[in-house]
Amino acid sequence: MGNGDDGAVWHPGPDVDVVLSQDACVEGVDFVRRWSSPQLVGRRAVAAALSDLAAMGARPVLCQATLCAPGTARLADVLAIHRGLAEAAAEFGCVLAGGDLSAVDGPLVVDVTVCGEVAAGRALRRDRGTGGDALLVTGCLGGATAGLRRLLADADPATDGEQLWIERQLRPVPRIAEGLHLVADGVTCAGDLSDGLLLDAQRTAGMSGCGVELWLDHVPTEPGIREAIADWPALALGGGEDFELLVAVPQAAAGPLLSSWPPGLAPLTVVGALTTGSGVRLLDRRGGSEIPPPPAASRHFG
Amino acid sequence: MGNGDDGAVWHPGPDVDVVLSQDACVEGVDFVRRWSSPQLVGRRAVAAALSDLAAMGARPVLCQATLCAPGTARLADVLAIHRGLAEAAAEFGCVLAGGDLSAVDGPLVVDVTVCGEVAAGRALRRDRGTGGDALLVTGCLGGATAGLRRLLADADPATDGEQLWIERQLRPVPRIAEGLHLVADGVTCAGDLSDGLLLDAQRTAGMSGCGVELWLDHVPTEPGIREAIADWPALALGGGEDFELLVAVPQAAAGPLLSSWPPGLAPLTVVGALTTGSGVRLLDRRGGSEIPPPPAASRHFG
Repeated sequence: MGNGDDGAVWHPGPDVDVVLSQDACVEGVDFVRRWSSPQLVGRRAVAAALSDLAAMGARPVLCQATLCAPGTARLADVLAIHRGLAEAAAEFGCVLAGGDLSAVDGPLVVDVTVCGEVAAGRALRRDRGTGGDALLVTGCLGGATAGLRRLLADADPATDGEQLWIERQLRPVPRIAEGLHLVADGVTCAGDLSDGLLLDAQRTAGMSGCGVELWLDHVPTEPGIREAIADWPALALGGGEDFELLVAVPQAAAGPLLSSWPPGLAPLTVVGALTTGSGVRLLDRRGGSEIPPPPAASRHFG
Repeated sequence: MGNGDDGAVWHPGPDVDVVLSQDACVEGVDFVRRWSSPQLVGRRAVAAALSDLAAMGARPVLCQATLCAPGTARLADVLAIHRGLAEAAAEFGCVLAGGDLSAVDGPLVVDVTVCGEVAAGRALRRDRGTGGDALLVTGCLGGATAGLRRLLADADPATDGEQLWIERQLRPVPRIAEGLHLVADGVTCAGDLSDGLLLDAQRTAGMSGCGVELWLDHVPTEPGIREAIADWPALALGGGEDFELLVAVPQAAAGPLLSSWPPGLAPLTVVGALTTGSGVRLLDRRGGSEIPPPPAASRHFG
């Protein structure tokens, strides 16, 4: 349905569940205008919101966005944000269908709602883990926080490697195809890493009524950060903006899942296990010794 | 699905369309904190967003809300807004299922997303009118703007009548039951009056490829405003916060629709007609003389 009506309409497929999620990007908290073009701000807001659908294994269908901008904002910037929203929606397979625009005497707020579909009863959930399950993540961790640090330093030109970390921060990719593949493979337990591996593993374990063990040496990190950044464990375990997925599967299912994982998707890596206890334990490696968790790397920079 | 997962999930009924809408309430634009309790701010944000579902004839299923509040906001106020959101959701038959909370260095923003269902292909649309159709509105117009003026004046105690106008402004009621009844009755063309009767009638006519005629004397107004407010036509034709519905039906269908209209619903009144021309004409009464439209009553007070 076109613009001008009061809402967006779509006909869900047969025997699906509808998944709804909402995610706000606030200037000075989630982004800084001088670091990204307005278009990139729009793109990132959609990508971040779609990460929640990816974490549920849902196929994105449509999205809406509310933009609150100060009256002094340039119209060209507002239109560029909108273009970024629409292009990101198209890139990730859904339609930007309306939303709201309001003047605000304050910072820019881009609040994105995403709506998607998943086969009935098959949405990935955090509370479906069991003690003994293998714990896996998609992609590499720590890149977005490393990029954020580079942006905050703001000084000399970034190396090519650093430039990639900055891309991770400013141009995240929601793991939609990965979420869809997990559902198709029969996986039931997943979430995204919006608060970093340490906190999100703890959350998944807590909701599943068990404990969790993480193996630091097994955690896949963004190329270069182990060499270049002394406190890389804080970035890999605490950075929440990589928008990767955290997955728990029975040990017997981990091998088949890994060996049939399509090469076009972000790689999947075992990083630990759910345990029959409670709480989180960080080990230097599988079967190794317990080490203290690093201080949390702040998610925001407000 | 409970809190802690990345999105809310629901199973749509058989053969339905899903309707999605998003509406932001911004402090200083849509509400002023000293006029309403935080709870009422939350309630109003949900009611305003649900009005869009009512205008599509959809049954609300779930809603989500993003709350951006300054770091200095009192926790008790944030919780009261949340209580208002949840209570309004329950009052209007849907579930508040998550959303987002962010600190913002600026005014309060409450951005509400609503999701509902309507029988497939039956959502009410603005572009389904035809020249000759009768044009009707639900309820009474002008009350919310009259209440807003009273709040802006801010001085001596309001009379009982004025108090009712203030209620219209602060505690609007989305016309959900009315929208559902319209769909059940076979109506196809409707929208809500978010920009006032004059502008919304023009929008409906434009999207339907026809013109429109409004009859001022027929417009139902909030009790007391014709007597008390000299420029009541500006309020009745330009006030956008009554959250009533605007409906177009073929002339032959108007009589049966009116005579079978359930007494428990907001009353339905003929206020004009779509015409075969284009643009909007305001007449003093049906078949009367054309009069100039009043200057628009501002929707906001920022």
